[in-house]
Amino acid sequence: MEKLTIVKVGGKIVEEPTSLKQLLTDFSKIEGYKVLVHGGGRSATAIAAKLGIESQLVNGRRVTDAEMLKVVTMVYGGLVNKQIVAGLQAIGVNALGLTGADLNYMRSEKRPVKDVDYGFVGDVKEVNAGILADLISKGIVPVLAPLTHDNAGNLLNTNADTIAGEAAKALAKHFDVTLMYCFEKKGVLLDENDDESVIANLTPALFKQYVLEKTINGGMIPKLENSFEAINAGVKQVVITKADQIHTQNGTKITI
Amino acid sequence: MEKLTIVKVGGKIVEEPTSLKQLLTDFSKIEGYKVLVHGGGRSATAIAAKLGIESQLVNGRRVTDAEMLKVVTMVYGGLVNKQIVAGLQAIGVNALGLTGADLNYMRSEKRPVKDVDYGFVGDVKEVNAGILADLISKGIVPVLAPLTHDNAGNLLNTNADTIAGEAAKALAKHFDVTLMYCFEKKGVLLDENDDESVIANLTPALFKQYVLEKTINGGMIPKLENSFEAINAGVKQVVITKADQIHTQNGTKITI
Repeated sequence: MEKLTIVKVGGKIVEEPTSLKQLLTDFSKIEGYKVLVHGGGRSATAIAAKLGIESQLVNGRRVTDAEMLKVVTMVYGGLVNKQIVAGLQAIGVNALGLTGADLNYMRSEKRPVKDVDYGFVGDVKEVNAGILADLISKGIVPVLAPLTHDNAGNLLNTNADTIAGEAAKALAKHFDVTLMYCFEKKGVLLDENDDESVIANLTPALFKQYVLEKTINGGMIPKLENSFEAINAGVKQVVITKADQIHTQNGTKITI
Repeated sequence: MEKLTIVKVGGKIVEEPTSLKQLLTDFSKIEGYKVLVHGGGRSATAIAAKLGIESQLVNGRRVTDAEMLKVVTMVYGGLVNKQIVAGLQAIGVNALGLTGADLNYMRSEKRPVKDVDYGFVGDVKEVNAGILADLISKGIVPVLAPLTHDNAGNLLNTNADTIAGEAAKALAKHFDVTLMYCFEKKGVLLDENDDESVIANLTPALFKQYVLEKTINGGMIPKLENSFEAINAGVKQVVITKADQIHTQNGTKITI
């Protein structure tokens, strides 16, 4: 199978013109087939605030009422996604921006209300990998916004890490997939005060131990849980790294 | 050649949930290959106003400064486009939302400043019809937002009528194209106070006469000029009609 690299980057990097430009240059250097998945939470929060809409986060996830859904549809699907697409085209990458509604490539269901009502947030139910694989094989580079749809006319807000993980799992049937999650550090750190203390390799056993010891905590836990789930579902490797390392693939490598 | 219908609808219809739903149902009834081109100016004006950005129109065209470009990128490329795509998917139409940057399908250049500085407005220079035709032939229905790009990293605001006309001309090499412009009336009217006074057929000679007599005026003139240009460039027919007539193709038929 051909190699495919799926890179997920957070909001901060793609929302600043300078860091975005560097990211796109680094991304363009990745050889072979590739996909970019982006966030945009900071812009959504900023624009919502200007519109008089308060952002509410529970466990790091945005509560999405009807007005906030409009904001994230504008910001993720429009502003952030299209600026990335235009930036990639300018350096010769044939990008195509997609939400889950486009080509019905990712269908979700509104999250059931339990302790928290997250509102218009979608849990992924189905990925149409064939249509994505077909585009990728033609040299097209999908740029995935963190939006899905319920195939009943409603867009839903879905975490970009989840989009990347679900796309990676589904595409693992068609490609040898490397899934890269980018964040502020060069990888998962043993010591949060030492940026060079990158854990080179992480297995499920080590992960459990680090969580118990609280070496790994906060938002890194769901990111790593998603990573192991992806590996178990056929993704070849997951790499947790800093955005400026994506073309080297250095960072924390997740394996079974 | 196979038949292709390109429908351009204005902002008003796609911005109201009820009229949008009816439009998408009517659009889905059009047989054969199809493309939808949409505006969104009212939403852009409303959201810009909420953000404290004043909309300025010259000759019916929006002046697009850097802040307004962000607004139209959000509203046209995100909010309006993705709501249409999700709505079409819900009724079994395999929609794909595109700006000119996506797949580099439509490249423009920033309009030179003459009497008026329109700002980040793009005049279309190149349409990559092959990539659109390939998607259309697979049963995919492109939904085109009124945004282009300069292939140097910048999105540009381009009138939806122009997008529809340029796409129609370029696709005329691949399909028998019918281009439909929808507006509030059932066609071009002989008497603006009589909604039933639809001109059934319009030729260049008749058009000139009506303009001189001021029977045809205002925003209808550039619309019709675009129509004749499209016909001269190989588009089979242009129909000016009301949105609720798109599946019947009644209205004013433009021919050479």
